[in-house]
Amino acid sequence: MSKKTIILFSGDYDKVMAAFVIANGAAAMDDEVTMFFTFWGLNAIRKPEGGGALTGKPKSTIQKMFSAMMPRGAERLRMSKMNFAGAGPKMLKMVMKSENVMSVSQLIETAQEQNIKFIACTMSMDVMGIRQEELIDGIEYAGVATYLAEADEGNVNLFI
Amino acid sequence: MSKKTIILFSGDYDKVMAAFVIANGAAAMDDEVTMFFTFWGLNAIRKPEGGGALTGKPKSTIQKMFSAMMPRGAERLRMSKMNFAGAGPKMLKMVMKSENVMSVSQLIETAQEQNIKFIACTMSMDVMGIRQEELIDGIEYAGVATYLAEADEGNVNLFI
Amino acid sequence: MSKKTIILFSGDYDKVMAAFVIANGAAAMDDEVTMFFTFWGLNAIRKPEGGGALTGKPKSTIQKMFSAMMPRGAERLRMSKMNFAGAGPKMLKMVMKSENVMSVSQLIETAQEQNIKFIACTMSMDVMGIRQEELIDGIEYAGVATYLAEADEGNVNLFI
Repeated sequence: MSKKTIILFSGDYDKVMAAFVIANGAAAMDDEVTMFFTFWGLNAIRKPEGGGALTGKPKSTIQKMFSAMMPRGAERLRMSKMNFAGAGPKMLKMVMKSENVMSVSQLIETAQEQNIKFIACTMSMDVMGIRQEELIDGIEYAGVATYLAEADEGNVNLFI
Repeated sequence: MSKKTIILFSGDYDKVMAAFVIANGAAAMDDEVTMFFTFWGLNAIRKPEGGGALTGKPKSTIQKMFSAMMPRGAERLRMSKMNFAGAGPKMLKMVMKSENVMSVSQLIETAQEQNIKFIACTMSMDVMGIRQEELIDGIEYAGVATYLAEADEGNVNLFI
Repeated sequence: MSKKTIILFSGDYDKVMAAFVIANGAAAMDDEVTMFFTFWGLNAIRKPEGGGALTGKPKSTIQKMFSAMMPRGAERLRMSKMNFAGAGPKMLKMVMKSENVMSVSQLIETAQEQNIKFIACTMSMDVMGIRQEELIDGIEYAGVATYLAEADEGNVNLFI
């Protein structure tokens, strides 16, 4: 039993999948796991339906553009290769289903059930104009110092 | 003397090259090295000539499409930047040769000669419809639990 | 107080930014930090004005092409997603400024002030035809063996 940390920087469906397969695998082996979502990785934990009325500072025009153009939630993510305007992820998901591999949204649910700690990077949220209401529930909000404190305790620390 | 692990997720020529330079460097310093090939990284260890008659479950139509579109073997990989429809890798290889830098296929050969352990991710193989006969010889097949057990013993664990 | 190493392989503005935020955060917590710049990551530490008269072996035609096409310096880097022919980075920088987030060139300056060790990968420099005069001052030049020696002392080693 040890600790693992993963920085999820990527918002590509295939990389997000890899991150959660590793995280869930470690949690299943009784490891403590912390995932730190930054930049495009935040898209994997956005609520598909948006956040309703947002509190805090209003988004700037550029932040509204970023938010509007970035995929909302795991099942809308694109692939890093062979995306083919969305056909790639659809095909990938069909094969995953027929091979009994969990979808990314199921992997995320499992991760939360296994008490994997999700931390959303507040600096990235500020830059991209993502508000807490727009992200899934049950997560923490912190910056790089918190990540580093977690990684100091980890014996495996990955950047994905 | 210690242990290193590398997850090779990427199938880009430049990233695969970086992975093998690090792996071979560590092995040359008497480190034990394990490389775990997953997703696009599997393309680096596909046999260029395919696998002949395949055993096991027949590939689905989508899996056949994936297999057909993905590059077979190290020297057919694309670059992550400046690929220019294949001209990028060709130019890169010309410079590498003139600078006496090993090609990726030579790096892979050297890695096997140095007894670097190659593990192909079985879950990715299932999803992408890649069969054991299509991958180079002398490798192992396992899942995320095996990777994690190796990484627990590593003092440097990279995701590339 | 411990040691961290980061291989910066990527030359994307967003990934370079993530690397330096982590590096500076660790240095601010009194960690020793080594950054190893390889491949596209070298572009982040190129002098914007070029290197003037270059010493050493003359660049080959392909190397001249590579040098000419790759961005010179941190503020000319592209984004890994939503680059939009350069509009993406411009918009990102505008938001970063309004959110009081340091630009990548400021992050690099801070890193040097905090005595983060910069090592440029000599093998990548050879391949890409980048000469020492073209890179910023105050950095070291070494190969994979030096990286591995540093990483052996690190408790967090990332590949970005």
